[in-house]
Amino acid sequence: MTDKIALTPATHTVPPAKFSHGVKKGNLLQVAGQVGFLPHEEGKAPTPAGPTLREQTLQTLANVKAILEEGGASWDDVLMIRVYLTDVDHFAEMNDIYNAYFGEQGLTQPPAARTTVYVGLPAGLLIEIDALAALG
Amino acid sequence: MTDKIALTPATHTVPPAKFSHGVKKGNLLQVAGQVGFLPHEEGKAPTPAGPTLREQTLQTLANVKAILEEGGASWDDVLMIRVYLTDVDHFAEMNDIYNAYFGEQGLTQPPAARTTVYVGLPAGLLIEIDALAALG
Amino acid sequence: MTDKIALTPATHTVPPAKFSHGVKKGNLLQVAGQVGFLPHEEGKAPTPAGPTLREQTLQTLANVKAILEEGGASWDDVLMIRVYLTDVDHFAEMNDIYNAYFGEQGLTQPPAARTTVYVGLPAGLLIEIDALAALG
Repeated sequence: MTDKIALTPATHTVPPAKFSHGVKKGNLLQVAGQVGFLPHEEGKAPTPAGPTLREQTLQTLANVKAILEEGGASWDDVLMIRVYLTDVDHFAEMNDIYNAYFGEQGLTQPPAARTTVYVGLPAGLLIEIDALAALG
Repeated sequence: MTDKIALTPATHTVPPAKFSHGVKKGNLLQVAGQVGFLPHEEGKAPTPAGPTLREQTLQTLANVKAILEEGGASWDDVLMIRVYLTDVDHFAEMNDIYNAYFGEQGLTQPPAARTTVYVGLPAGLLIEIDALAALG
Repeated sequence: MTDKIALTPATHTVPPAKFSHGVKKGNLLQVAGQVGFLPHEEGKAPTPAGPTLREQTLQTLANVKAILEEGGASWDDVLMIRVYLTDVDHFAEMNDIYNAYFGEQGLTQPPAARTTVYVGLPAGLLIEIDALAALG
């Protein structure tokens, strides 16, 4: 039986429930829904990078990337990115931030597929992102 | 060609459309969105386990598990659990129920990754859950 | 390393951001969230097939299918279909359309699993669908 490995970057806050920030099994890597929390500081509650969509989007992408890297993967391995926004009016700005971010990631493969939908999130959070990757 | 196998536990209501409660193909097993319906009784419309988040969450998890088991899988094989709630105020209670439930499942592998978002669901339903598993 | 291949049917509008309409890597094929846009016409903005749920659902399914076929896959290979509606009252009608559509697709395998949730979408769009397939 192939082991399922939990991916827990040192920068991450402890999950608020019995789930893993990411798991890897065989060639599949699943990143749990990430939000824009800053790197964990001992004894401090999870804190968003800032109130703006830009701050939260960039931090969220950094948090997803940290989990990919913890599993030996990169953005190039990602098949699907799910973006959850709270406000349809944020779509264009999120795309600008998203495009600039991935323009700087040095991708050598085509970008991942993506679905963006508009949902409710806990107060203060504007974006959540998860990702599915296939390595190798 | 590897067959895709429909997973239809005897306890489940007939899907209201042309979809499968779960499918397995090769080592992948996908569980469709489950809600808190009680085991199917002939001639009776689908009925939620109860009006409370606790009743519906536990029944929903049981419904997901039945599909996993129909496909020869267990919670240990699950990579990703998607939780859809209708109310942000249910997050803490859902986590308590979720943690207690998985604490009793005898997991031998790290817990699955998870994304929780807040959406609309049909009247009377407070939670929906789907899952992706990789066997072997 | 297995290449990740972008799937871009000629009929599709250019994605509004750095994502692919579909990607294929090894035996996995992920279709990005599709909406009911008509086939792309040079110099024309993306235009929904019509204002009704029926028009948009059928065009959305056609758009998903075009990406599957671009990757050498068919509906038979699809494990999971995610349906995002904007209105709970559309569930029954969407199911009728969905059932009739898949009744005509000549499936030789069980239908895919499915999750349907109700979210916000950009103005004028009533449905979004994505899909995960495993080939071979």
